[in-house]
Amino acid sequence: MNLNDARTLARDLDAKDPLASLRSHFDIPEGTFYFDGNSLGPLTFRSREVLHRTIEFEWRERLIRSWNEDWLAMPARVGNLIAPIIGAAQDTVICADNTSINLHKALMAAVALRKDRSEIVVDINNFPSDIYIAQSVARQHHMKLVAVPADEIIGAINTNTAVVTATHVDYRSAQILDVEGITKVTHSHGALMVWDLAHTAGAVPFEAAALDVDFAVGCGYKYLNGGPGAPAFIYVAPRLLEESDQPLQGWWAHAVPFEFEVGFRPAEGISRFLTGTANVLSMKSLEAALEVFDSISLGKLREKSMGLSTLFIDLFDAHLAAKGFTLESPRNPVSRGSHVALGFSDGKALVEAMSAEGIIADFRPPNLMRFGFAPLYNSHEDVVTLVERLSAY
Amino acid sequence: MNLNDARTLARDLDAKDPLASLRSHFDIPEGTFYFDGNSLGPLTFRSREVLHRTIEFEWRERLIRSWNEDWLAMPARVGNLIAPIIGAAQDTVICADNTSINLHKALMAAVALRKDRSEIVVDINNFPSDIYIAQSVARQHHMKLVAVPADEIIGAINTNTAVVTATHVDYRSAQILDVEGITKVTHSHGALMVWDLAHTAGAVPFEAAALDVDFAVGCGYKYLNGGPGAPAFIYVAPRLLEESDQPLQGWWAHAVPFEFEVGFRPAEGISRFLTGTANVLSMKSLEAALEVFDSISLGKLREKSMGLSTLFIDLFDAHLAAKGFTLESPRNPVSRGSHVALGFSDGKALVEAMSAEGIIADFRPPNLMRFGFAPLYNSHEDVVTLVERLSAY
Repeated sequence: MNLNDARTLARDLDAKDPLASLRSHFDIPEGTFYFDGNSLGPLTFRSREVLHRTIEFEWRERLIRSWNEDWLAMPARVGNLIAPIIGAAQDTVICADNTSINLHKALMAAVALRKDRSEIVVDINNFPSDIYIAQSVARQHHMKLVAVPADEIIGAINTNTAVVTATHVDYRSAQILDVEGITKVTHSHGALMVWDLAHTAGAVPFEAAALDVDFAVGCGYKYLNGGPGAPAFIYVAPRLLEESDQPLQGWWAHAVPFEFEVGFRPAEGISRFLTGTANVLSMKSLEAALEVFDSISLGKLREKSMGLSTLFIDLFDAHLAAKGFTLESPRNPVSRGSHVALGFSDGKALVEAMSAEGIIADFRPPNLMRFGFAPLYNSHEDVVTLVERLSAY
Repeated sequence: MNLNDARTLARDLDAKDPLASLRSHFDIPEGTFYFDGNSLGPLTFRSREVLHRTIEFEWRERLIRSWNEDWLAMPARVGNLIAPIIGAAQDTVICADNTSINLHKALMAAVALRKDRSEIVVDINNFPSDIYIAQSVARQHHMKLVAVPADEIIGAINTNTAVVTATHVDYRSAQILDVEGITKVTHSHGALMVWDLAHTAGAVPFEAAALDVDFAVGCGYKYLNGGPGAPAFIYVAPRLLEESDQPLQGWWAHAVPFEFEVGFRPAEGISRFLTGTANVLSMKSLEAALEVFDSISLGKLREKSMGLSTLFIDLFDAHLAAKGFTLESPRNPVSRGSHVALGFSDGKALVEAMSAEGIIADFRPPNLMRFGFAPLYNSHEDVVTLVERLSAY
């Protein structure tokens, strides 16, 4: 199919897209084609509006009173907005800190529950920060860190394993890991599982409760569109909550923080995984952006995401494969998250050149160009525009 | 002195105040009298302006490109703005996370440097979150937590002591601890000292470098006016940096974070105390608010702070002592931070009633009313207005 025909087809698909109207929530500049929602989601009109109110009314006018009037309840409230997006029950998710800090809390809590064991298993292709955090936890607990590729994780789990951690959607290839299989084998050996949902939440469905996941963490600024450095989240299975401790037990994790007791007593619920004061501006922005998810079906969202990336791969086969680009993501859409990675020797320079023209993707060493297809705001025609530009290299 | 005479005197002092013009940086609502800068600083015109640019230009328009164009450098840049305010050299302070998390990093790093020792000494009247974090570190390292009142800290330090931690200005009484004495005795026993500067930075001078402090942490949203939940900071003495590890070693602490190496290698400088992605909006707001400090003398700031709180205590003696209020802060201004605490049996109700009228202070159990006198924006006449209202109870 030539690119003119592809554009006609894409317009037709866009016209029939039941989610097409969602793009109107996003204030994407005219002339910008954005394929980096996997790194930083764009500004929503609601985030702007809520930030304005937070600055002008809540901070400027109400000042300290806003803590009682609104802000103290925010981590739990925003956690409850994220919960349905990752298949978790209400009051099992809380919003706080960044992903690496939450992963530290989850791993430390998990390891403390299995301290008679000696190994932590981690996906060696995990996002490096996750590996660094796991290295630190292993060192502190004198455990061995077993780092293996995703398809060897199951084989690496045994009765020495305290905890297994991996990212659901690989940050480079977008490969979706076998959550159900890995979690089951982890449990069958009496170990605990910590999933990182950084590239999942808001684009790929997840079933934290139904799959009996122990812990999960994730990011607020990618497909959830919370804005730069928006806070992250942590999920803890309710069955583990009462016996779970985490080392960053600041006052927000206390049963009664405003009693200022000298001794620490953890809160009963998920807020025992908080530490200190929430960054209000960023969390407000995230809360506002999450409104987009209110009325939509996650199944339809996933369907559109797969449609966009499949169209991209079809056009890759026709127009890019012969030009030295290689497909570095799974062909089967069921195994693929919401971005597609292409290998290209000149990838870094090309990403930079395109960025200067307003066609925005990102680059990961050594030679990967990543293209995020965010079903909330990317159109099928966007995909054609992208391929057109790539094929002109 | 009756309150009419006090007001005349206060106006006179305000007219001669070399810092009076700094109030013009702050957008405090008409009719609001704000005595809670010790909890949450008010909005500056610059923060509003910078937040607007961050949202509209950096996030909306530049999107992911802003990381390279500006945001990645922010934690170090903002740290360098805070450094002179706490008497630290450039590149020894970094801005990140919240105070409790930074305290955890500092204590864990300190304890790892003294792991042959068995005790952590903490001020029992420290802000409770600091005690909870110290409890957690002690538990992880199987150390004993020795919690004593401030005036017993020096006596509690011995060769078993790994680390001593206390807050420079007590969050309730505003008592200033003897930094020089405590740090010296700590060092003379071979232990390390971690100071919390939450109620110091921006109102009370501190000499991190000159007093050879090992670690310090502090808060961005009190006297630094960064906005609700603004990030905190951490200082590490350069002589300790190379041998210091901290457990939250996320990718931002890596020597080359964007090489995505599998193994963790700490950055050479203070950025090894970072963890993950900075919350951009809150950090931008803090950076903007710090501009106020550009041109001012910290000595003059301290002088005004002492003048304001001394005026308040003089008026307390004349108008409030007889009405059941008790002074719970040091009389000697040299020993007093930038707020004054009064005990009052009906304190909670009175703080609430005043707040509804726009005269804003805060309350800490069991019966403490706290009045912050922020030399950047509070006037001497504000103090008279406050006493007038309190004396009318």
